[in-house]
Amino acid sequence: MYTIINNVLVPFQQAAVPINDLSVQRGYGVFDFFRTQNGVALFVDEHLNRLERSAAAMHLKIPYSRDELQEQVDQLMKQHRLPCSGIRITVTGGSSADNYTRGTPHVLIAEQSLLMQDPSQLHPGFRLITYPHVRELPEVKSINYMMGIWLQPKVKAAGAEDVLFVNNDHISELPRSNIFIVSKSGSLFTPSENILHGITRAKIITLAKAILSVELRPVTLTELKEAAEVFVTSTTKRLIPVLSVDANPIGNGRPGEVTRLLYQRFIEMEQKYFEKV
Amino acid sequence: MYTIINNVLVPFQQAAVPINDLSVQRGYGVFDFFRTQNGVALFVDEHLNRLERSAAAMHLKIPYSRDELQEQVDQLMKQHRLPCSGIRITVTGGSSADNYTRGTPHVLIAEQSLLMQDPSQLHPGFRLITYPHVRELPEVKSINYMMGIWLQPKVKAAGAEDVLFVNNDHISELPRSNIFIVSKSGSLFTPSENILHGITRAKIITLAKAILSVELRPVTLTELKEAAEVFVTSTTKRLIPVLSVDANPIGNGRPGEVTRLLYQRFIEMEQKYFEKV
Repeated sequence: MYTIINNVLVPFQQAAVPINDLSVQRGYGVFDFFRTQNGVALFVDEHLNRLERSAAAMHLKIPYSRDELQEQVDQLMKQHRLPCSGIRITVTGGSSADNYTRGTPHVLIAEQSLLMQDPSQLHPGFRLITYPHVRELPEVKSINYMMGIWLQPKVKAAGAEDVLFVNNDHISELPRSNIFIVSKSGSLFTPSENILHGITRAKIITLAKAILSVELRPVTLTELKEAAEVFVTSTTKRLIPVLSVDANPIGNGRPGEVTRLLYQRFIEMEQKYFEKV
Repeated sequence: MYTIINNVLVPFQQAAVPINDLSVQRGYGVFDFFRTQNGVALFVDEHLNRLERSAAAMHLKIPYSRDELQEQVDQLMKQHRLPCSGIRITVTGGSSADNYTRGTPHVLIAEQSLLMQDPSQLHPGFRLITYPHVRELPEVKSINYMMGIWLQPKVKAAGAEDVLFVNNDHISELPRSNIFIVSKSGSLFTPSENILHGITRAKIITLAKAILSVELRPVTLTELKEAAEVFVTSTTKRLIPVLSVDANPIGNGRPGEVTRLLYQRFIEMEQKYFEKV
């Protein structure tokens, strides 16, 4: 396997970042991540748009044009020819003489094989715990996952699969996923604030609008607990039902009908994308 | 110059971290930093204690004993023989197969020459801005300085030198310094919560107790604005007067007498340490 570092193809075993880079020194950098299937990168425009927005928000200048980035991604896919992969583009804070001032970013493009859930099977579901937290600059896809990783032992100890961040009785997001609620009255809610604007989230919102009423707005913990259905979305998870939150079952504790329908529609959308390009 | 990576001496130009390390991937890691003078590491026991506490709090197991770490530090100092340096020990989240689960930490020990303020001259002073924020796990010296670095352009635009984090009308700390207030009634206050427990802070508290009343407790923005004197402390800054906060002058806008006295006492303590060891 290879990695592209600053536009140079490097064997993965040798892929490294200087220790004076601000990612290593100060956890400063942004990235994006997308899936590929047989050389087609899913929703790659949306992911590269977000990468550029994240970098700009963090005062980082990506030293390549959009076309150059796309070419590097294509080069890596052609090198590996993986049937199903994830590609991560990281834009670091750059090497810093004083270990604090931003430098010229290093751009790391890495591809790994990805084992995805069989599309014909909805994931059996996640149990979540909640934790009071708002990510720093949540709209930026920064490399800062400190709280998510720090909470992993707590997640495991609770017999759960992931953690939902809450703040002043409002829910926001998981460390790597967005959350949706289907109310008992049949509307879909998803938090509008203190979140990363997920690409899968945006697609699900579009698909859902053809099916039911959709509201992007602050969502309370009470609304979550009284929901008929809850699911989370992300690039690697697609759409995964939530069965319980803090050990309280959601709805009847089984994946709901809206969840199943939206999952089906998303799989269709994904397949159309892979066929069309 | 050399770096010690996982107990191996490596030329600084080649010192690098694999890109699948959780520091690069997820901003996950801890560190500590101390000064040296002619081969003597200032307050090194306190710094290594804190490094061990930070690592434990972040579920990271340092793969070396205290003695082994100390030996590596000594080896690096002997290699460089710098008259005045800073040594940084970083314990990363480790290489991760899934880019999320903690691995075996990489331990990076780097030394750089340090240009310190002439001890006979108190620093002329800092102007601060405030920003609403509490660092994630503030008692841990993690590598996460995302907000501090992100705020740098705002600090510069305001013509200031640094930023003070505030939360619900309480002050906490700067990204890399602790803060102290001398009230008009002649007491010393320093925030007790949502802070990194600075080594210089602890020494100043000890020294101050011989001079005036010292209170470690929550401190309000109002107390800050009405202070007679304000100063900040850190390993590289020692003690620096604060002249203004959000463009409001502190006291008479000049370094105060308590600040000068504590600075003098700290310089004496530091010199005793360097002479005694």
